Amino acid sequence: MFDLMILAPIGAVAALAYAFILSRRVMAQSEGTDLMKKIAASIRSGANAYLKRQYKGVSVFFVIMGVVLVALVFAGLVNVFVPVAFVVGGFFSGLSGFLGMRIATNANARTANAAQHSLNSGLKVAFSAGAVMGFTVVGLGMLETSLWYYFLRFYYSALPVDQQAQMIASAMVTFGMGASAMALFARVGGGIFTKAADVGADLVGKVEAGIPEDDPRNPAVIADNVGDNVGDVAGMGADLYESYSGARLSAAALAVSAGFGFTGMALPMALAAIGIFASIIGSFFVKTNEDASQKQLLSALRRGTYIAGALVAIGAFALIYFTLGMDYIGLYGAIISGLVAGILIGYFTEYYTSDTYKPTQKLAGTSVTGPATVIISGLSLGMISTFIPVIIVSVSVIISFYVSGGAADYNAGLFGIALSAVGMLSTLGITLATDAYGPVADNAGGIAEMAGLGEEVRDRTDALDSLGNTTAATGKGFAIGSAALTALALIASYIDQVKLISPDYNFDLSIMNPPVLIGTFIGGMLPFVFAAFTMESVGTAAQSVVKEVRRQFKEIPGLMEGTAEPDYASCVDLCTKSAQKEMVPPAILAVVAPLVVGLILGVKGVTGMLAGSTVTGFALAVMMSNAGGAWDNAKKHIEAGNLGGKGSENHKAAVVGDTVGDPFKDTSGPAINILIKLLSIVSIVLAAVVVNFGLIK
Amino acid sequence: MFDLMILAPIGAVAALAYAFILSRRVMAQSEGTDLMKKIAASIRSGANAYLKRQYKGVSVFFVIMGVVLVALVFAGLVNVFVPVAFVVGGFFSGLSGFLGMRIATNANARTANAAQHSLNSGLKVAFSAGAVMGFTVVGLGMLETSLWYYFLRFYYSALPVDQQAQMIASAMVTFGMGASAMALFARVGGGIFTKAADVGADLVGKVEAGIPEDDPRNPAVIADNVGDNVGDVAGMGADLYESYSGARLSAAALAVSAGFGFTGMALPMALAAIGIFASIIGSFFVKTNEDASQKQLLSALRRGTYIAGALVAIGAFALIYFTLGMDYIGLYGAIISGLVAGILIGYFTEYYTSDTYKPTQKLAGTSVTGPATVIISGLSLGMISTFIPVIIVSVSVIISFYVSGGAADYNAGLFGIALSAVGMLSTLGITLATDAYGPVADNAGGIAEMAGLGEEVRDRTDALDSLGNTTAATGKGFAIGSAALTALALIASYIDQVKLISPDYNFDLSIMNPPVLIGTFIGGMLPFVFAAFTMESVGTAAQSVVKEVRRQFKEIPGLMEGTAEPDYASCVDLCTKSAQKEMVPPAILAVVAPLVVGLILGVKGVTGMLAGSTVTGFALAVMMSNAGGAWDNAKKHIEAGNLGGKGSENHKAAVVGDTVGDPFKDTSGPAINILIKLLSIVSIVLAAVVVNFGLIK
Repeated sequence: MFDLMILAPIGAVAALAYAFILSRRVMAQSEGTDLMKKIAASIRSGANAYLKRQYKGVSVFFVIMGVVLVALVFAGLVNVFVPVAFVVGGFFSGLSGFLGMRIATNANARTANAAQHSLNSGLKVAFSAGAVMGFTVVGLGMLETSLWYYFLRFYYSALPVDQQAQMIASAMVTFGMGASAMALFARVGGGIFTKAADVGADLVGKVEAGIPEDDPRNPAVIADNVGDNVGDVAGMGADLYESYSGARLSAAALAVSAGFGFTGMALPMALAAIGIFASIIGSFFVKTNEDASQKQLLSALRRGTYIAGALVAIGAFALIYFTLGMDYIGLYGAIISGLVAGILIGYFTEYYTSDTYKPTQKLAGTSVTGPATVIISGLSLGMISTFIPVIIVSVSVIISFYVSGGAADYNAGLFGIALSAVGMLSTLGITLATDAYGPVADNAGGIAEMAGLGEEVRDRTDALDSLGNTTAATGKGFAIGSAALTALALIASYIDQVKLISPDYNFDLSIMNPPVLIGTFIGGMLPFVFAAFTMESVGTAAQSVVKEVRRQFKEIPGLMEGTAEPDYASCVDLCTKSAQKEMVPPAILAVVAPLVVGLILGVKGVTGMLAGSTVTGFALAVMMSNAGGAWDNAKKHIEAGNLGGKGSENHKAAVVGDTVGDPFKDTSGPAINILIKLLSIVSIVLAAVVVNFGLIK
Repeated sequence: MFDLMILAPIGAVAALAYAFILSRRVMAQSEGTDLMKKIAASIRSGANAYLKRQYKGVSVFFVIMGVVLVALVFAGLVNVFVPVAFVVGGFFSGLSGFLGMRIATNANARTANAAQHSLNSGLKVAFSAGAVMGFTVVGLGMLETSLWYYFLRFYYSALPVDQQAQMIASAMVTFGMGASAMALFARVGGGIFTKAADVGADLVGKVEAGIPEDDPRNPAVIADNVGDNVGDVAGMGADLYESYSGARLSAAALAVSAGFGFTGMALPMALAAIGIFASIIGSFFVKTNEDASQKQLLSALRRGTYIAGALVAIGAFALIYFTLGMDYIGLYGAIISGLVAGILIGYFTEYYTSDTYKPTQKLAGTSVTGPATVIISGLSLGMISTFIPVIIVSVSVIISFYVSGGAADYNAGLFGIALSAVGMLSTLGITLATDAYGPVADNAGGIAEMAGLGEEVRDRTDALDSLGNTTAATGKGFAIGSAALTALALIASYIDQVKLISPDYNFDLSIMNPPVLIGTFIGGMLPFVFAAFTMESVGTAAQSVVKEVRRQFKEIPGLMEGTAEPDYASCVDLCTKSAQKEMVPPAILAVVAPLVVGLILGVKGVTGMLAGSTVTGFALAVMMSNAGGAWDNAKKHIEAGNLGGKGSENHKAAVVGDTVGDPFKDTSGPAINILIKLLSIVSIVLAAVVVNFGLIK
């Protein structure tokens, strides 16, 4: 029989090759004037310095965890390859972030330069850079999976075929922890960096000194632009690398449990491979005419995603039909439900956060009665916006479960849920491209401003940037939705793993069983505490930036007059240090919580905790992301000349909302996505520890 | 055998008699000068007008629901007495609120007048008024239970004894819906009223016109004082009436399921009766010397609560020992765990919200960098403060379950959990007294200001008021904690009820069963949406007050000079109307959600929804209440002369926090308590409908 799994390395190579070609094409563009080159170099070196420092800091964590895992190997509590896979996963996840960031920091000036020519040229460069990032993430993800799969296949080749599939699948699902941990550091560290720099730059530069955004006299301006890259590019890349891996690997493990053997295991990989080709084709359709309006730009980006989605819908049908036949065509329904859910969540995220719709316009209107009402209305907008995504995910889960035959065969239903997560993420290549495009355009705007490229160019980069805000909001919704589905698949894998370790475990996971119930209470609280940690961190880090910027304004003579240059590096350094220090407590929380809960409340408590954290985390992440996005755009709405425009009292009130929204949407909200997945994967890895040593059995 | 249940009517009579005596004592005091009498009369008539309007509006809801319930009776889907009990429960709950509010609006001027004499005199009057409220609530609660019990006992007397207990217990647990629904309206309506008036009065009076708080020239000042009474007194009373009933009735039902028959059913009532006597004795110890400091005042109030708690601890031991014997002494452990949990949650609430501790002081410090950082820090304070209450409730649930023998006998364990809720609420008489004391003191301060009673008196009422803020925070923590435990007991009762209706129902309530899981997702989202509704309502209502106050300032000549009187009644009327209109959507949400979820996802979905809403609702309510309390006290901390004091930029930043905190702590946060209980009780009443017509079985 044709080995379906071969599609994984093929997809990986295709994605990476395409990313390479695009990257060559971007690099062939000119970076523009010497000043532009110099600014871009500063941003690049700042971003590199940050990542270097981050990887150094993270390696300490990886060494410690590695030692713990090796000890667990010797105690016979985890698979022998887990420590290696932990490091490799971390490396690949980090590499995704690094490569994405490298292209982004090389594309920013090139986008600004191309925008001098035309809007379409600018769009092309920025989107290509985003696509490099998107395809690197999916390519590396599929590559890592392929390497491990063929290695384990070889390693376990002496076993009977049935057992082989079981061993490989259950080993590989534990391998995601490295990528998850790296993602957490990237998201939290990058999120703290970017918002500390942003808030710091705004509070002193815009508010106190009264100079415009991205003014080269502002000492934090380079740090601000670096932040876009380390937070929104590297962080987002590592996050979705992780969802992409987690969804496929848990689907593979659940496929084996559902009795689909090697074919089932290969299905999610094949689906992802189809998604890669669909995304590549879709990306060809992202182009527009030279005098495109904002709306035409958006529809150009959307066209690519929709075409990719349609291609996956066709390919997935063929996939199920030719592998499992019409008896299992229900699984196709699961894939489609995931795919559609992803698109719908993205759409409703846009509805709640874009100022072309009522909610954000209404929010902008509350600025008339001051900052307090802006905050109250923004929070309630965020809260009410949880309704639709929760319903969408719920409907998608229920459909996936039942169409896959879950009513008769529970395991088949769980496989269906996991497959819907893979379906949602299948077009990740192009979805991530439209998302990562945003920070590149944002940076391009900054460079255009700092290099004094003139009104027309700035207008074009502003158009690109504003579009980037919309796609970023959509991307965030997508990241949250996929994180929730992935987390559910991982919880199912967790229970599977426990069953493998201890088949006679007492499995009363009834929600009214006190250990389960209490687990949900504790899990439900974790996202709140986690969000608090990360918000506080941004506050602390921002305070230090504020002080440094104030110091430079006072101590460097000629700075305000533009005759002397600020010390950009010191702000970058400060943000880097703060981010490194502040990202430790949230990481510890995520790793320690499953262990502590497991040792006291056992498997039941852990299961409850995972469910509780997913439930609350999903709602809280949606709320924070959407409130933050809406505040940002409400401010932009006023700046566009509505309600008194820039500098009015209304604008000041809206700026307060925007500042509160910054850590909401770019630090805490996205970090919660990773929290819920990391909790699951740590639980999976530590399953044997909890089974053996948990107080409550 | 001695009929233990007789303690219920005895306790009821004792509580009501004591409330009557205290109320006579309060009324014997003088209301002071004619001006004070006039102001008090205005507040009283405003509050009465509000309640009258509210009861009228609510009666429409009660009629509609009553008709629905009668239809369900005819369809054989609910107990024949449910419609009557629904109305009676609503009446008693409303009566608790009304009587509490009546004494509060009669005691405010009397407290101000007594404070002219001394601090202790003021404390005595205010505390006595609070105690009238507290003992009225517990007295009426026990009375209602007694009446139904003896009536049903008579009605079912033809049945065999075993069946009698079963029938009575399972009927009575459905009787709480009326009280719950009334509580929701009281909390939400009162919460909207009080904050609309407060925010409206502050935004125009303090911020725009620059006149002090409680200035008689402010047209919204009477509405503001009315709000304290309708929100914090009547709303709080109805809320806790409901917890008190829910906890006892679900404990009684679970006792019967656990096989304890009539004795078990009487246990929670007897425990509550012991609590009543303990509270009466405890209240004798609330007194202080004439020149007491703030700290001494607080310890005077605490002394009463602690003594009552200690007496319950002793009495409960005797109760278990003499009824069930040493074999069941584990149930005593459950009671104590609830009692201790209530005290601890109160303590930690104070820690997070009082400016004598670090968190609030630190929050005040963030005002230096403006309103945005105040908001960010306040939100993260609220979020982080969820950790300890969740752990306390979790530990309490686990202890209650296992010491009651839950590991061997699941039903006994559930009874233990329900009994711990009754234990926590047993001292409600005195806890509510210290809590309801706050708004009375607050009103007294307002009257002292408006009547121009001079610096010294205002200082004393300020001392009483500030103490009231602390006890109010503690009381809120207590209300939330008891709501969570009560909700858990009600969920257990719900499952019990389903088992009674359909013994062969497929009971796979595993948290990974998709209908259950999806139920938790939907349930987890409901508190967010509910909070959004209520916050928006406050915003809408406050806007209308702002406009009215501005209009009066502009159109009434001589108002600012103090030569003309504002039209207080129009503001009261406006708040009343807004509150009535705005409280409808949240109420519909709470009643319709269990029905819709039940009809689609069946019993499993409903169970998941109840667990999910309790988990998220608990965390969200704690977060909102504590953030709100901390913002309030951070502002007060600055007003006390720290960080630049009143009128400074820091103060302005803190006022933004306080304004955001107003609907957090006084509307949305407390209303979530009721939401989670009401969802459970509606589910219990509609159990047969869902069992018969739910799509997913």
